[in-house]
Amino acid sequence: MGLVRDNIASMKGYTPGEQPGDLSVIKLNTNENPYPPSPRVLEAVRSIADEQLRRYPNPDAQMFRQAAAGVHGVDADWIMTTNGGDELLALVFRACVGEGQAAAFLDPSYSLYPILGAMQAAKQIVLPYQISGANWELPREIFKLSARLLLIVNPNAPSGTFIDRETLSRIIGGFTGVVLIDEAYVDFAPDNALALVKKHANLILLRSLSKGYSLAGLRFGYGIAQPELLRELNKVRDSYPCDVVAIAAATAAIKDQDWARKSWEAVRSEREMVCAQLGEWGFVIPPSSANFILAQTPEGLSAGKLYEQLKARNILVRWFNLPRLTDKLRITIGTPEQNRALLTAIRELVAQPATAKNG
Amino acid sequence: MGLVRDNIASMKGYTPGEQPGDLSVIKLNTNENPYPPSPRVLEAVRSIADEQLRRYPNPDAQMFRQAAAGVHGVDADWIMTTNGGDELLALVFRACVGEGQAAAFLDPSYSLYPILGAMQAAKQIVLPYQISGANWELPREIFKLSARLLLIVNPNAPSGTFIDRETLSRIIGGFTGVVLIDEAYVDFAPDNALALVKKHANLILLRSLSKGYSLAGLRFGYGIAQPELLRELNKVRDSYPCDVVAIAAATAAIKDQDWARKSWEAVRSEREMVCAQLGEWGFVIPPSSANFILAQTPEGLSAGKLYEQLKARNILVRWFNLPRLTDKLRITIGTPEQNRALLTAIRELVAQPATAKNG
Repeated sequence: MGLVRDNIASMKGYTPGEQPGDLSVIKLNTNENPYPPSPRVLEAVRSIADEQLRRYPNPDAQMFRQAAAGVHGVDADWIMTTNGGDELLALVFRACVGEGQAAAFLDPSYSLYPILGAMQAAKQIVLPYQISGANWELPREIFKLSARLLLIVNPNAPSGTFIDRETLSRIIGGFTGVVLIDEAYVDFAPDNALALVKKHANLILLRSLSKGYSLAGLRFGYGIAQPELLRELNKVRDSYPCDVVAIAAATAAIKDQDWARKSWEAVRSEREMVCAQLGEWGFVIPPSSANFILAQTPEGLSAGKLYEQLKARNILVRWFNLPRLTDKLRITIGTPEQNRALLTAIRELVAQPATAKNG
Repeated sequence: MGLVRDNIASMKGYTPGEQPGDLSVIKLNTNENPYPPSPRVLEAVRSIADEQLRRYPNPDAQMFRQAAAGVHGVDADWIMTTNGGDELLALVFRACVGEGQAAAFLDPSYSLYPILGAMQAAKQIVLPYQISGANWELPREIFKLSARLLLIVNPNAPSGTFIDRETLSRIIGGFTGVVLIDEAYVDFAPDNALALVKKHANLILLRSLSKGYSLAGLRFGYGIAQPELLRELNKVRDSYPCDVVAIAAATAAIKDQDWARKSWEAVRSEREMVCAQLGEWGFVIPPSSANFILAQTPEGLSAGKLYEQLKARNILVRWFNLPRLTDKLRITIGTPEQNRALLTAIRELVAQPATAKNG
């Protein structure tokens, strides 16, 4: 045996999307919000004092939890904060799934889940979406599943598709382990699962400030669940998961709901415009409830090649060289200017000029 | 079986030291540096732009790693950054120690280690320090140990005692697993183990900006090890462990070595003054190489009671109600004014006025 465990030595780490230093790149590859955060965030960052940097932060991010509790209509002890939503995922795995125990998740879905499973030396139950054209359907196995943990991204990444609340409630009610609904993109969706947390003691929701609140640079996420479950999860978290600047900035952001909501509405309306245009050009796109779309390229057009051609024009989108995704691009919805640049480039590269409405 | 694993359900989480919101408290309980961070840190925080908050940070904190590499005379791929030193501890456990495998650490030592071991359902090998008065000696077992991971805080917390480089090299050379030397307090010590990293492929050093660089509020730590080991550890880390503000602030801090060094020298000189005075009053204190001391109260004086009495006077120190520690207080070295206030309070509470030099 080497210095690390065999399950670690044999696994690969997560590969994040490219993060170019060049700010002139049109970056539609990692699902950031295209609009800036509330001006109150920068005010909060700039009013940090030396004395706050010198001392340990509040270990429970109490200021943020109270603000978020107000927004969601729950008590503060229903909320726990983490260093990005990813840390919440890692600690739910750690708390619930021992070696050889089962964790289940849909596929294609967030590509971090199998990696977190491998870290725990878990048994992985992969639930394949039934994909037919633009239609992504849940596999029937999800309703009669036996595992310690079930992860559902909703809206799903990378498809953007949404599972309604009644279906979720059926899944959770029929499952004896912990269900984590990863709502990283839920701010762009027509509904969310908040009401289900009050009904189900085995449910935890993941929220993130990265997308809905334009704070991907900050690493701030949180979980919403009943206090009994959070008390257990708190045992496996870091002593001070969130730093003093992040707590102040995240609190300012979540308090400014009006600002964030405007960005959600703008993204939704642009999303429909981009989908309609690409649809006219023969791309097949499942209805998206997120701030991105998954576009299958028209017959005869390589998604991998289109990704490269767009990159050569300084436009970054995401191409996953994975089963059932190689013929698709995941495209983050940008500002109107960025979306127009994207559509113009795609039209020039692939579409029939005669059928184009835009540019 | 409940919602979480049995080893999690039966364990307790970590209890951090008190973090009072009231800034008038003389806070000598969690080993913060009493001096403010370099003014360049606040400049860096205040120059953060919206666009940096909106986008994901550099996943590898490249800017910081290059700066730290320059300071330590290694290449940047010998350094990995984490959300506080505690995250590095957690991921070394995760990478190296499977269920039922052994992790070893000294005792008394950092109280987070047994908790991280419990999370992994690890077998824990506790190596008791041989304590006799002010003398803390390594147990002989440490030189012929079989385990996957060995953790050594150096200088040790809570004793402040220091293990010399030759002894460390003997321990590491005789051990087949990974050795982590937790150098969170090493900036206040006369030496460090950097040279040993080049000799030993199974060694990783933990460094933190919390104490040496006055940035406990920021959560920024890093590891130094050979690139082969870091490649494995990187697989189990978060995708973006450090946020954009923390990276900028930490980089500014580590570049300003002159500023930090002045605080280390001031703390060392005050440490000797506090030790000398308490020693005169009958406290027994092992020689400390850290920014705190562990003071055993004189015969007949309860450490728990002294802790409460100091707290009533708005002075917080740390009292661990743990075996071999109940008769001792861990006291962080503060500014000259804070230390004088501490000594005055102790003298009034316990010491003979006739023997006091100070106040």
